[in-house]
Amino acid sequence: MFNSLGNLLNLTTFGESHGIAYGGIINNFPSGVEINLEKIQYELDRRKPGQSAIVTQRKESDKVKFLSGIFEGKTTGTPIGFLIENENQKSKDYDHIAEMYRPSHADFTYDQKFGIRDYRGGGKSSARETINWVVAGALAKQLLPEIEINAYVSSVGDIFCEKPYQALDFSKTENNDVRCPDAETAERMIARIKEIKKEGNTIGGTVTCVIKNVPVGIGEPVFSKLQAELAKAMLNINACKGFEYGSGFCGAKMTGSEHNDSFNPDFSTKSNLSGGIQGGISNGMDIYFRVAFKPVATILRPQESVDKYGNPVIVEGKGRHDPCVVPRAVPIVENLAAFVLADLFLINKTRNINQFK
Amino acid sequence: MFNSLGNLLNLTTFGESHGIAYGGIINNFPSGVEINLEKIQYELDRRKPGQSAIVTQRKESDKVKFLSGIFEGKTTGTPIGFLIENENQKSKDYDHIAEMYRPSHADFTYDQKFGIRDYRGGGKSSARETINWVVAGALAKQLLPEIEINAYVSSVGDIFCEKPYQALDFSKTENNDVRCPDAETAERMIARIKEIKKEGNTIGGTVTCVIKNVPVGIGEPVFSKLQAELAKAMLNINACKGFEYGSGFCGAKMTGSEHNDSFNPDFSTKSNLSGGIQGGISNGMDIYFRVAFKPVATILRPQESVDKYGNPVIVEGKGRHDPCVVPRAVPIVENLAAFVLADLFLINKTRNINQFK
Amino acid sequence: MFNSLGNLLNLTTFGESHGIAYGGIINNFPSGVEINLEKIQYELDRRKPGQSAIVTQRKESDKVKFLSGIFEGKTTGTPIGFLIENENQKSKDYDHIAEMYRPSHADFTYDQKFGIRDYRGGGKSSARETINWVVAGALAKQLLPEIEINAYVSSVGDIFCEKPYQALDFSKTENNDVRCPDAETAERMIARIKEIKKEGNTIGGTVTCVIKNVPVGIGEPVFSKLQAELAKAMLNINACKGFEYGSGFCGAKMTGSEHNDSFNPDFSTKSNLSGGIQGGISNGMDIYFRVAFKPVATILRPQESVDKYGNPVIVEGKGRHDPCVVPRAVPIVENLAAFVLADLFLINKTRNINQFK
Amino acid sequence: MFNSLGNLLNLTTFGESHGIAYGGIINNFPSGVEINLEKIQYELDRRKPGQSAIVTQRKESDKVKFLSGIFEGKTTGTPIGFLIENENQKSKDYDHIAEMYRPSHADFTYDQKFGIRDYRGGGKSSARETINWVVAGALAKQLLPEIEINAYVSSVGDIFCEKPYQALDFSKTENNDVRCPDAETAERMIARIKEIKKEGNTIGGTVTCVIKNVPVGIGEPVFSKLQAELAKAMLNINACKGFEYGSGFCGAKMTGSEHNDSFNPDFSTKSNLSGGIQGGISNGMDIYFRVAFKPVATILRPQESVDKYGNPVIVEGKGRHDPCVVPRAVPIVENLAAFVLADLFLINKTRNINQFK
Repeated sequence: MFNSLGNLLNLTTFGESHGIAYGGIINNFPSGVEINLEKIQYELDRRKPGQSAIVTQRKESDKVKFLSGIFEGKTTGTPIGFLIENENQKSKDYDHIAEMYRPSHADFTYDQKFGIRDYRGGGKSSARETINWVVAGALAKQLLPEIEINAYVSSVGDIFCEKPYQALDFSKTENNDVRCPDAETAERMIARIKEIKKEGNTIGGTVTCVIKNVPVGIGEPVFSKLQAELAKAMLNINACKGFEYGSGFCGAKMTGSEHNDSFNPDFSTKSNLSGGIQGGISNGMDIYFRVAFKPVATILRPQESVDKYGNPVIVEGKGRHDPCVVPRAVPIVENLAAFVLADLFLINKTRNINQFK
Repeated sequence: MFNSLGNLLNLTTFGESHGIAYGGIINNFPSGVEINLEKIQYELDRRKPGQSAIVTQRKESDKVKFLSGIFEGKTTGTPIGFLIENENQKSKDYDHIAEMYRPSHADFTYDQKFGIRDYRGGGKSSARETINWVVAGALAKQLLPEIEINAYVSSVGDIFCEKPYQALDFSKTENNDVRCPDAETAERMIARIKEIKKEGNTIGGTVTCVIKNVPVGIGEPVFSKLQAELAKAMLNINACKGFEYGSGFCGAKMTGSEHNDSFNPDFSTKSNLSGGIQGGISNGMDIYFRVAFKPVATILRPQESVDKYGNPVIVEGKGRHDPCVVPRAVPIVENLAAFVLADLFLINKTRNINQFK
Repeated sequence: MFNSLGNLLNLTTFGESHGIAYGGIINNFPSGVEINLEKIQYELDRRKPGQSAIVTQRKESDKVKFLSGIFEGKTTGTPIGFLIENENQKSKDYDHIAEMYRPSHADFTYDQKFGIRDYRGGGKSSARETINWVVAGALAKQLLPEIEINAYVSSVGDIFCEKPYQALDFSKTENNDVRCPDAETAERMIARIKEIKKEGNTIGGTVTCVIKNVPVGIGEPVFSKLQAELAKAMLNINACKGFEYGSGFCGAKMTGSEHNDSFNPDFSTKSNLSGGIQGGISNGMDIYFRVAFKPVATILRPQESVDKYGNPVIVEGKGRHDPCVVPRAVPIVENLAAFVLADLFLINKTRNINQFK
Repeated sequence: MFNSLGNLLNLTTFGESHGIAYGGIINNFPSGVEINLEKIQYELDRRKPGQSAIVTQRKESDKVKFLSGIFEGKTTGTPIGFLIENENQKSKDYDHIAEMYRPSHADFTYDQKFGIRDYRGGGKSSARETINWVVAGALAKQLLPEIEINAYVSSVGDIFCEKPYQALDFSKTENNDVRCPDAETAERMIARIKEIKKEGNTIGGTVTCVIKNVPVGIGEPVFSKLQAELAKAMLNINACKGFEYGSGFCGAKMTGSEHNDSFNPDFSTKSNLSGGIQGGISNGMDIYFRVAFKPVATILRPQESVDKYGNPVIVEGKGRHDPCVVPRAVPIVENLAAFVLADLFLINKTRNINQFK
């Protein structure tokens, strides 16, 4: 169904940046799963504003409250409703933009499509919506305990983490504010973001995600291939401009003899340019993909723009904004990937009669 | 619904490479649309094998037959069933691979997931499935006559079409076999493909797609953003490894002051790094995106692999295969994009009460 | 999508009888609809427990709180989240049935299906869930202001309202506790329910619903016929055992010459045994249907039953229960019908190109 | 998705009465199921026109041809495409009604909704569409070999089969043309239909369906209850006017003490007024329901009607029509029920983590 996430495991959400609350309903989550609420809050805390010097200083406690579907510590198989209250709503910050269209924001398109919009903090178009996705993904992770999902910042502007993911120690991702497991690169990224922030500017970056221990068989050809479901989820994240998996865009420069992954006798492959997916179905190798994020559109500088009547105006970002989204995007990418995998994992339980004969 | 395309306008398909026929059902196509069958066959002919020296020499007439939903030249609003018969089924070509797992093919994953597979020509995993998508997309184009969709080959291996799309004349795309509107680049691409073919090898490439005249308001935040639906569709195409739109991965290197698209008084934007989409909704500017394709896995050289028991075997591509998929991918990308747009266009007709008051 | 209501206009809900709250998300509700919150609360008050002597004396204020999707009195086209807090949770009332299976309740089937259940007040299987449906339907009514939907109690046990609906004045439905617009019949129904209540017993009944001013064309053949969507919605109501529309089961006794509805020159029909629907599509005549409800399973008498281990036990209803559900079912049927109509109404906006050319 | 059948196991269909062919695609059917094609054709033969003196004499061989999804006798898990060609298309029979609106047919509503219709034999509104449903249901039966589904004609006009289903021998259902297992009642039903046919009239009836050996746990509260999915499917059958299960409309006259089904120590119930379903979930007892069918609208007598301009006309049924649909409805009801059960059976495989831990 459009405007909800997942095919069988399903997430529907609500909430606007400066409304009363965000929340959602996770439908068709299996019964009997023990839920660790601390782990869910941990993921929210990773996404939370105000956690470091290089993200927005906006303060929100972002505590999730579960309203149904969990009984005596286990899921009951009935819909899981959850709520995150908005605390820090300085609506006044936004009165001045009620009739303005900010460059590269959704003000104009929402007004045109719906004829009305909640302009406060971008309303529905705010990236605060992703808080709901983190809750759902963190639950999905608990459905698939054996699967390891690690995302990290692989570039900020033109500073790239040159090491391949195999050379990185993901236990170090949380050791620095930018969430790049390579300490030396992290330092340079942080310096770059601080510099950009001082200029009242913003900068883009990329997040790489590596998924280990996915069982063979996850993904639904021909229209719900694993990579297609991942791409759709990622492209729904605010500011995302691109997705590639396995060899990605580099693979388009290669020849077949270079690109083919030959098999070992145990059906693992010697190389993994395929990125753990063949024909839309997981093959048991690591799944890895990269997501591109544009620089945040809100900059703390005067910009020429127009109001809703087409009159020239000067807009200037106020309030507290992220100079670079990628550090906070890391938990969003990870948990969103977990949700996509859980959905396809459940579907796969229905695809071969011999599983339940 | 998983394993079908589209949310409201819906395509379900069937068919295997060496089965009796391909076909599909287009559900919820509006009534009253005049259908030009020649235009649909034209798109199929662009995708068809054997049309030039740089694609597979496999011969198929690929004639589509409509079985329902069109009456006296117009759609009736009832399901449109269509059929394309398979003609050229040299099943024997494939007997030798019945128990083999070809490198970077879906043989292993299908066997593992389903416990059975039609191995002839890759069966369901064959890219011949895309013939169904071209039929559906070509119909969708006739629902949106005002929208112009032009795809072209923007790279083959490391040969890139350096000119921006604005500098290209799309009326020239069909003037050469590789479908690059820049004649000089096309020549070099064709030479490269012929060279690769002579070596029994294959090569990757990219396709760029430009969509003009999309009305403002198409796309459904928060989970069916226009770019997300496009990405999902494209990543379902066989051999696709990546998708980017607007500034794409380059945008991740930029700063906000460079990247923001400022408005003109008529709400068009001075630059268009956003790629015609803001907040998941079309803003009236050109929509453009790029799709990466890996090199075809079937190469006409001996490769080490394993059979379904894990025993080492040598596989060698036989029969007639594409040395490079991108020339034939052009109509697939175009028509698939048309289908995605038509689906979201119809949904948009329900999103604002003032449209139908 | 299963476990949600509606195809395009979509309701997802959560909540258990003795949990923290009920609530839901209405997705894809069009923008620009002025919302009258009093009218929504009015429908909830009609459904509310404790409103009269012949319904349960359980007390709940059942106040709905909207959390998103409505801005400055109008819908914004973004998801509408709402919440109804549970107040009156005497969980202790239910401790004694934690391991018991009550006759004709869902205790056994939930335990078997999910391996766990929230037993308090029936948990998810409680009819309190319908509070969510009333909220969604009351919103849907405001999308279709011209359509008149009137349900009423047409029988309690063997006491029937003999008058055809055309002879009834629906403005009188709310004049009595049982919600039968025929005062004399209402009195007898009320007396019967009081008598049954005194016996600690319960009784069944039927609700008839009449829908006027539905535009021609609502309903989607072949798998989402208007009557099929209504039937599905009604059969999801707790205790519902049957649905018939137009001539219903009586029509099965008739001949074609008796049953056919002949046309007037204005395309209205002289008779209306079809119940306002032809081929699954509304024809502009009154739509009417009848819904059967079994007697409430909880009776205030000792009954032989078994516990989860199969041991014989005696269960006796405690707490406050409805002796007859039909008076409170009236607003549920009405609002549920409104939601189904609104969903199909929106879909119909996409089915004929000439509507938006 | 609207206009398709099933939530996870999915059927999409096409075809018009006098088009080239009917057909459909069954999506998400599990792999590894051995398919007996004879059994599928057997169900089609039971539905076929011209099989006895009391059904239409229209002749069609109704042979189904499978085009994909079955390989070496087993399902592959990929979409199953099928085709039934139309043979007996006397389009001329219908030229005279091209502009006429037949009483109690869908001519008017289709024209109004879609602005165009294939008028030949009712086009899409023809009950011939149900041939697709029988194919899909017959396949679904092979997914659930242990489940026994038996439907039979329980009334024709005012002639009822008075015996409860428990007293009937379903092996005798096919022994007579009307498909009532009680020989004596069958004779009276047949005589009544012949009499009605002689008068050029038609008559209604009911079909009862009994389903044995359904495992406990099938059905999805709260919006996809087993009875709700069955009701939706049945109300989509042409001419269906009502559905009741278990005690049905009679249950609405009963008291709780009469209606409750008390448990045996093995969790079976002493009585079964619930009809094998509690809280929308199968409880292991027999599931039984009854479906009402109105008399066929086409009668071989002159009737006053109007044309599309509102001018009075006389319509008179020509060609070959059923005097009573219920004998041919029996296999439709049975196979449609099988499809609904298979869909919910597959969904249930995903609802409890302990099933696949």
